[in-house]
Amino acid sequence: MNHFYQFFTANHIISGAHSLDQLSEHLHLVKRKIDSALIVAQPALQRLGFIDTLEKQLSEKGIKTFTINHVMPEPTIQNIEDIYQDIADKEFDLLIGIGGGSVLDATKLLSVLKTNDYSIRDLLGGNQIEKEGIPTILIPSTSGTGSEVTPNSIVTVPEEELKVGIVSKYFLPKLVILDPMLTISLPKSITAATGMDAFTHSLESYISNKANPMSDMFALESIRLISSSILEAYHHGSSIEAREKMLLGSMYGGMALTSAGTAAVHALAYPLGGKFNIPHGVANSMLLPHVMAFNMDVITEKLVEVSKAMGIDQAEESPEKLAEKVIEQIAEWTKELNIPQNLKEYGVDEQDIPHLAESALKVTRLLNNNPKSLTIDQMEKIYRILLP
Amino acid sequence: MNHFYQFFTANHIISGAHSLDQLSEHLHLVKRKIDSALIVAQPALQRLGFIDTLEKQLSEKGIKTFTINHVMPEPTIQNIEDIYQDIADKEFDLLIGIGGGSVLDATKLLSVLKTNDYSIRDLLGGNQIEKEGIPTILIPSTSGTGSEVTPNSIVTVPEEELKVGIVSKYFLPKLVILDPMLTISLPKSITAATGMDAFTHSLESYISNKANPMSDMFALESIRLISSSILEAYHHGSSIEAREKMLLGSMYGGMALTSAGTAAVHALAYPLGGKFNIPHGVANSMLLPHVMAFNMDVITEKLVEVSKAMGIDQAEESPEKLAEKVIEQIAEWTKELNIPQNLKEYGVDEQDIPHLAESALKVTRLLNNNPKSLTIDQMEKIYRILLP
Repeated sequence: MNHFYQFFTANHIISGAHSLDQLSEHLHLVKRKIDSALIVAQPALQRLGFIDTLEKQLSEKGIKTFTINHVMPEPTIQNIEDIYQDIADKEFDLLIGIGGGSVLDATKLLSVLKTNDYSIRDLLGGNQIEKEGIPTILIPSTSGTGSEVTPNSIVTVPEEELKVGIVSKYFLPKLVILDPMLTISLPKSITAATGMDAFTHSLESYISNKANPMSDMFALESIRLISSSILEAYHHGSSIEAREKMLLGSMYGGMALTSAGTAAVHALAYPLGGKFNIPHGVANSMLLPHVMAFNMDVITEKLVEVSKAMGIDQAEESPEKLAEKVIEQIAEWTKELNIPQNLKEYGVDEQDIPHLAESALKVTRLLNNNPKSLTIDQMEKIYRILLP
Repeated sequence: MNHFYQFFTANHIISGAHSLDQLSEHLHLVKRKIDSALIVAQPALQRLGFIDTLEKQLSEKGIKTFTINHVMPEPTIQNIEDIYQDIADKEFDLLIGIGGGSVLDATKLLSVLKTNDYSIRDLLGGNQIEKEGIPTILIPSTSGTGSEVTPNSIVTVPEEELKVGIVSKYFLPKLVILDPMLTISLPKSITAATGMDAFTHSLESYISNKANPMSDMFALESIRLISSSILEAYHHGSSIEAREKMLLGSMYGGMALTSAGTAAVHALAYPLGGKFNIPHGVANSMLLPHVMAFNMDVITEKLVEVSKAMGIDQAEESPEKLAEKVIEQIAEWTKELNIPQNLKEYGVDEQDIPHLAESALKVTRLLNNNPKSLTIDQMEKIYRILLP
């Protein structure tokens, strides 16, 4: 069997508790001489004092900093373009994104908008980014998107009620910092939704038609790490060990999806985000067990491997039973993590379903990765399970 | 515990039996428009017809090709500079290296010599390569160095009787092709020495002071793949499955060492290659069990993990016993693989040992990665074990 794989990743990674404090020691890896840096920050991290620490480190190195904090969650094109207008006349030779997936995705876009003559709409229209952006350092504060190591940036296109991914190797950062201390104050609901998002990345990568030996290795290791820590991170948020495993698992999920792509769960989730503002992790988490149940007959063997990575007891079980147990375990997690199970909570009605399915059907880039093709009827059926 | 990791790799990878035949489908990933390509070929592959196939594929795409085949095994600076003089006035926009580690390392150097104004000696002197080279495709025909995914190029410096590594991210290729069909005709002695070289990379990366979660994942997977296929590939060279596992294991070894580095085995091996022309894989293989025995008391726990990856029976064994079993297994392999165990076979005498140890002591870049530091006396002692 032949495999084609694509793999890009961050050049350098620092991880461990308080690794953010070591940032200034590694700046030379990013750029020889840095005069000024733009920090794109998650507001919560400002309140917690992390941005002060960061600014102080940079200023001790003689680097001027200015910080912005108005990236909205799951930003629209307009939001990013407004921010770009705010900074367009500023000079900076380093961009630091510190926050959740939305902040990191926005940082990546700002980096290339600054050096290329394209608008975001040009990029959505399929224009390839031609020039390297301003070098970036990406510092995730959630264990979710794995955005710190993916060549993707997701923006919301309100008029199409859809979220769209822009892909470029120039989105990859020079340096990633995985500091679990940034995640210990996350609200429980965010730990839950982002954690399940990361798990979805790994599981979808593992069963993707584009899965390959390298993505499989990252995906299974990610599944192992997340399975052994997601409930602990949720119930005991200050467990540094659990937070560290989640951050690493989430980064490996990003590496897996960079190589193998995600599939139908993501395709069905995008319209829920685009039209009803359902947080990406929640949408993925709601859909995951049902899409996997739909896929099950063609991925039984793969789910057996997943069951091993999840630590599910293998004793005297048939492959079919083990595959079912994977799906049951995911469903149990979403309950224990208090992730909503009903689309009505977000204002979705029966009459919205045909339109949601039509939108999902457009996400062919991801649907092509799904091991089993879905008709529009089958998509509607899956959405309907979530409207009990 | 904090981890710093560095990771670069090839952008795209194709693998599988006969994947070389798919090269032309993936050329667009390397460069939009290619007029002419220089092929740096292993002579044996010309005899086997692989170079004809490659040239034919390129010419069907309208690409002019010219092929050179005079990279010597473990090339000297002079050999590479001579080759560079031969091609300096030729125009080509793609470089394809197809062969063993020496051919791939030479291809990487030629790529950057063509676009930078440095000689190889400038680079040895510590000059950083400034400009990206001519884009490369690297196609290994041995499962050994993992050179196709490392930022390293090794050259022999005869006057210093040493082999030296030049490191640059610009050495990484745009595309790697892992086609086991290229390796099925390898002579048994090459399968043995290169296979043990790959294993050494993974084991040394795993116990390196620079080991990190990502390098560990690649190293253990590589150890798993090689342990389950090296004897099969040696005894039944035409087993495509074994050859495929060896190629993948060798590439993962390259990825592991890119991130974690190699250690004392390599430091001690370089003078054996530099002064006595002992093939790199043979030198590593001879030294590996003895350096690991020296390290054993500080790496017992790591060797337990290695024993699991090697498939060594875990039943009721102490960690110390399992660590010993790893070393015994390696020693047994080298016997079954008929790898020389005596330095005398290569003309090394007792009186050469002080000088060998002095040379090894200079390889501080790698010695610093070793979990236990070595005095010059300890180095001499290890060499002496190989002069029974």
